[in-house]
Amino acid sequence: MLLENISGAEDVRKLSLKEQKILAKEVRRFIIEKMSDNGGHLASNLGVVELTIALFHTLNLPKDKIVWDVGHQCYTHKILSGRRDDFALLRKYKGISGFPKRDESPYDCFNTGHSSTSISAALGIAEGRDILGEDYTVLAVIGDGALTGGMAYEALNNASKMKKNFIIILNDNEMSIAKNVGGMSTYLNGIRSNKGYTRFKENLASGLGKIPVVGNHLVERLKNTKNSIKQLLVPGMLFENMGLTYLGPVDGHNLHALEQVIHEAKRIDHAVLVHVVTKKGKGYAPAEKNPSAFHGVGPFHIATGKSKKESSEKSYTDIFSESLIKEGKENKKIVAITAAMPDGTGLDKFEKLFPKRFFDVGIAEAHAVTSAAGLASAGLKPVFAVYSSFLQRAYDQLVHDVCLQKLPVVFAIDRAGLVGADGETHQGIFDISYLRSIPNMTVMAPKNARELTEMLHFALQFQGPIAIRYPRGTAYRGFSEKQEPIEYGKAEILIEESKKREETQTVEKTEQTTERTAEQTAEDREKKTGKIALLALGSMVSTGEHIVEKMAKKGVNLSLVNARFAKPIDTEMLDKLSEKGYRKILTLEEGVRSGGFGEAVLSYMEAHHKDIFVENITLPDAYVEHGDVSTLRKMLRIDSDSIIEELEKKGFFVIY
Amino acid sequence: MLLENISGAEDVRKLSLKEQKILAKEVRRFIIEKMSDNGGHLASNLGVVELTIALFHTLNLPKDKIVWDVGHQCYTHKILSGRRDDFALLRKYKGISGFPKRDESPYDCFNTGHSSTSISAALGIAEGRDILGEDYTVLAVIGDGALTGGMAYEALNNASKMKKNFIIILNDNEMSIAKNVGGMSTYLNGIRSNKGYTRFKENLASGLGKIPVVGNHLVERLKNTKNSIKQLLVPGMLFENMGLTYLGPVDGHNLHALEQVIHEAKRIDHAVLVHVVTKKGKGYAPAEKNPSAFHGVGPFHIATGKSKKESSEKSYTDIFSESLIKEGKENKKIVAITAAMPDGTGLDKFEKLFPKRFFDVGIAEAHAVTSAAGLASAGLKPVFAVYSSFLQRAYDQLVHDVCLQKLPVVFAIDRAGLVGADGETHQGIFDISYLRSIPNMTVMAPKNARELTEMLHFALQFQGPIAIRYPRGTAYRGFSEKQEPIEYGKAEILIEESKKREETQTVEKTEQTTERTAEQTAEDREKKTGKIALLALGSMVSTGEHIVEKMAKKGVNLSLVNARFAKPIDTEMLDKLSEKGYRKILTLEEGVRSGGFGEAVLSYMEAHHKDIFVENITLPDAYVEHGDVSTLRKMLRIDSDSIIEELEKKGFFVIY
Repeated sequence: MLLENISGAEDVRKLSLKEQKILAKEVRRFIIEKMSDNGGHLASNLGVVELTIALFHTLNLPKDKIVWDVGHQCYTHKILSGRRDDFALLRKYKGISGFPKRDESPYDCFNTGHSSTSISAALGIAEGRDILGEDYTVLAVIGDGALTGGMAYEALNNASKMKKNFIIILNDNEMSIAKNVGGMSTYLNGIRSNKGYTRFKENLASGLGKIPVVGNHLVERLKNTKNSIKQLLVPGMLFENMGLTYLGPVDGHNLHALEQVIHEAKRIDHAVLVHVVTKKGKGYAPAEKNPSAFHGVGPFHIATGKSKKESSEKSYTDIFSESLIKEGKENKKIVAITAAMPDGTGLDKFEKLFPKRFFDVGIAEAHAVTSAAGLASAGLKPVFAVYSSFLQRAYDQLVHDVCLQKLPVVFAIDRAGLVGADGETHQGIFDISYLRSIPNMTVMAPKNARELTEMLHFALQFQGPIAIRYPRGTAYRGFSEKQEPIEYGKAEILIEESKKREETQTVEKTEQTTERTAEQTAEDREKKTGKIALLALGSMVSTGEHIVEKMAKKGVNLSLVNARFAKPIDTEMLDKLSEKGYRKILTLEEGVRSGGFGEAVLSYMEAHHKDIFVENITLPDAYVEHGDVSTLRKMLRIDSDSIIEELEKKGFFVIY
Repeated sequence: MLLENISGAEDVRKLSLKEQKILAKEVRRFIIEKMSDNGGHLASNLGVVELTIALFHTLNLPKDKIVWDVGHQCYTHKILSGRRDDFALLRKYKGISGFPKRDESPYDCFNTGHSSTSISAALGIAEGRDILGEDYTVLAVIGDGALTGGMAYEALNNASKMKKNFIIILNDNEMSIAKNVGGMSTYLNGIRSNKGYTRFKENLASGLGKIPVVGNHLVERLKNTKNSIKQLLVPGMLFENMGLTYLGPVDGHNLHALEQVIHEAKRIDHAVLVHVVTKKGKGYAPAEKNPSAFHGVGPFHIATGKSKKESSEKSYTDIFSESLIKEGKENKKIVAITAAMPDGTGLDKFEKLFPKRFFDVGIAEAHAVTSAAGLASAGLKPVFAVYSSFLQRAYDQLVHDVCLQKLPVVFAIDRAGLVGADGETHQGIFDISYLRSIPNMTVMAPKNARELTEMLHFALQFQGPIAIRYPRGTAYRGFSEKQEPIEYGKAEILIEESKKREETQTVEKTEQTTERTAEQTAEDREKKTGKIALLALGSMVSTGEHIVEKMAKKGVNLSLVNARFAKPIDTEMLDKLSEKGYRKILTLEEGVRSGGFGEAVLSYMEAHHKDIFVENITLPDAYVEHGDVSTLRKMLRIDSDSIIEELEKKGFFVIY
């Protein structure tokens, strides 16, 4: 095993081409085996094995800097930079991250996780290098999918100003996480599919000289040209027009060709784009065949590619997907939008049924939101399904394009709250805050599967911007029978302390009847003991339920309210709780404190019911690392046991 | 006067070419006169007079839809669509907006204000039209500056998928608000400067046929080609490569040519980009000469172009500009970044002195933030100077690239708080909220000019992400003598109620000495009366000062604390206020409530000093329309008189 002797770039640099080829095979086998055991990003990592080896062989790492766009293709990079043994705990709590992390290794020069940031980051590093007069190579590796993100163009536009070497490697695999879309994709496809390029480009690269301006004669000959022929003449011209030198396309699984082109790119004294064509899932047949399914995987059987544990339980994504299709059949004005995540968001099924009412805009959240605003202004009912952490990229478009004009766009915010293994960059912990800050926005969160369906129905009737946030994973089924109709801004009482207590007491003390009516008795009890209410949002309703159950066993009876709306909060419910004699309110949400649901409740209570004490359970003001969600919840003290423990310490359950 | 008879597109449609030319002159004169009286956006509006007339003449408005990118070039559009007489109140409170507004007219189909949104919005409208089977023309007018914003590319990439007509007019004036930058700018410049294009393109447009693939012979002849010749062959090829049809360039002041090309564009059954070359400030010599200075203007003398009222007082922008230069001289690692706003942010002066340490990235806030993170990771000290409402566009980059990695980037956030005449899209009212939601972020706000200088100095020494927010307009000079050194997370007591009272009483009642020490007496008084503290952030310190002064006259003595930090809040100060016997705290900030400074103070007090009542003065949960700032403050009830009135109603000043 060559791989066993590789603990850094210096070991890779020593290898012959033949040895590198062997190494590539070993790395590929290692990745497939590890992923089959633990899961992770598979297809993207198999695609860049040779590219990574070539970079480690050619560059002076870690002095030279590689910024990996998105970062979910960094496994070979991690394996070769001394972290091979850490793969047992990849993406697990306190193990190594699935993305580049500065804290982990000097080889990781910049953290990534979201798409399309790498050229900006690398360009900043290169500009810094030049100002400080230092000498090292800076290189961004970006996928063709990430080129659909506007930030990448902003960076390309600025890269053209570079007066020293700066390398962008376009890792072109004809897809991002899903099948790629748009003009850029078509353009790259045109380059790839034409065999003339490589040879032509080799000639061109060998000597970019000048020729005198040609006259109208040549112009005449070309005047009826079409795209394909234009591209034949000058591949990569789009990039050259933007002021970059284009090299390629190069076979991304040919180590020799890769190393040659990297050497060539290093010699150029300005920004250069190297077009490398790779195959997602390369070397593992099931992944090559279906790279989208093998983007992020759980443990699987290597022989078949089949998942080791199939979940039979429906996720919130499944519920959303089914519900939207049902709505879509009834209302032809409903259109669905995704930013390159048709599978992840569950919109793939909507697409199949209603292809003309479905838009995959690429990794372009800003455009997604503003084009949704355009669709709404034209009389459609757009639903943008998006992960919480990615909607962050369209905060201004929410403020400026949707909410200012009160346009009826529905935001189906998946992966809201803790997401687990993807870690810091993917946790959906800010959406309550950033959405609540925006005027005219309504924010809901369902307690269970059934409520998601009903909230979606409600949202699609609503005449203004409205968001539904729901978590990753299995949809909760508790409280499925109890379901008051969704009403704008209204919470729902799920467990009423006094009533529950009454029932218990009825059983225990049936003989102790007095002359007082049952109603009066209940009232008396409410006044004395009906004092603590839990006000839980979305995913925290089940946590609230567990707290109520556990405290009931300790003889403390609590009420549980399903908040339903994070904005507006149900102030009538808060008034009612005050009237009913509640003295303490515990809010529960899976999001940061600042600007959250809990602070909003507190703000109202301070102004109107100063005598009631409000305690907010939220996530801390901190990034949340990777790990499985239940571990993270304990670590963050938002599981029912931790909450009870903390509150007991504070004397929260003592009735004054 | 033709103009007097124009009250909608139907009146423009009737005009002959000759009459349209006369109309253009009249409109231009009207704009210059109105702007010279009231101020507004001048240069951009003078540039599109003919283009707007041509659109009104050619399209079926308002059934057809024009989305104006940014929207600060919509004056002719407003003048021709029945709002000529409203120009007396342009950008004034309750008058018409300087930007397109759906509420104002059916001609305004989509609100704009921020750059680079128009293609997305228009594309959404066009997609909606097609789904509903409707028939009208949708057209986005976007400047070349706005093409430096990534969102525009996201939209272009999606526009290529259109199967029906969709028109993008590129209004190319070789600059955005400032001189344009980057590869795209160079590219467009290449097209413009080459006379061969128009004719060649005319031929090309007349019949896009096919020619057989040419052999290596031609390839050979072209292999050493350079950009200029490539562009000669196929102007607009960058756009054609992205799947759009390119028409142009066309002289944007030639009405006949404009109308011809619009007719041609309407015939194309997919997305078409019409390249129109205009001159900013066209027809008014001082603006043509210096369009950047005439972008947004106050009242000026038409003959000379000179401003009618020169302010001698320094703005916060001036103070920032001077302070940064001073710091930059001492620390060569300081670099400055702007997103196309060198003048507006005051960085133009830094650029002159340190051109190599200055980056204008175009209208590309996302790239600005992430490249700043790259610069910081490479050892530089980047300062991104940006308006509050534009930093909204980089929320995810703040979360994902800067704060996650704790990179020491300084954010100089200008126009924080109310900005006045630009209205809803430009008010800087969300930054406290969205910045406070982000872990590892520090947020400061200076009370006056001197404090801005000292905060900048502090920020440049600080080892983490840090923001300073300061308002538009004249820098406050109050409290300039009193200045405790800036300390991380520490507030500063400016007026201490008991002390002040002591001084007053010393004067009035010097004879009434007792045996008790002065210290004891002060303590007694504190316990009885030292009960209300104002905790003011940044711009609200001066408001707080006025409240203290006005209430003192009414016999109510208050203390005033300068918060300095919106994050972290000074909890030690809050503990101290509690110890000192304060019973009520009034927080004051110029930002929305949700997630603001006040809610953070309340949250801490609820947990630690439940007995103290906290009242938060904030902006409402609403968009704030245009108008001068002092009117807006009154309307929003955040001026000192309104605050006192509201608080007196609530009995806030009554000591219990």
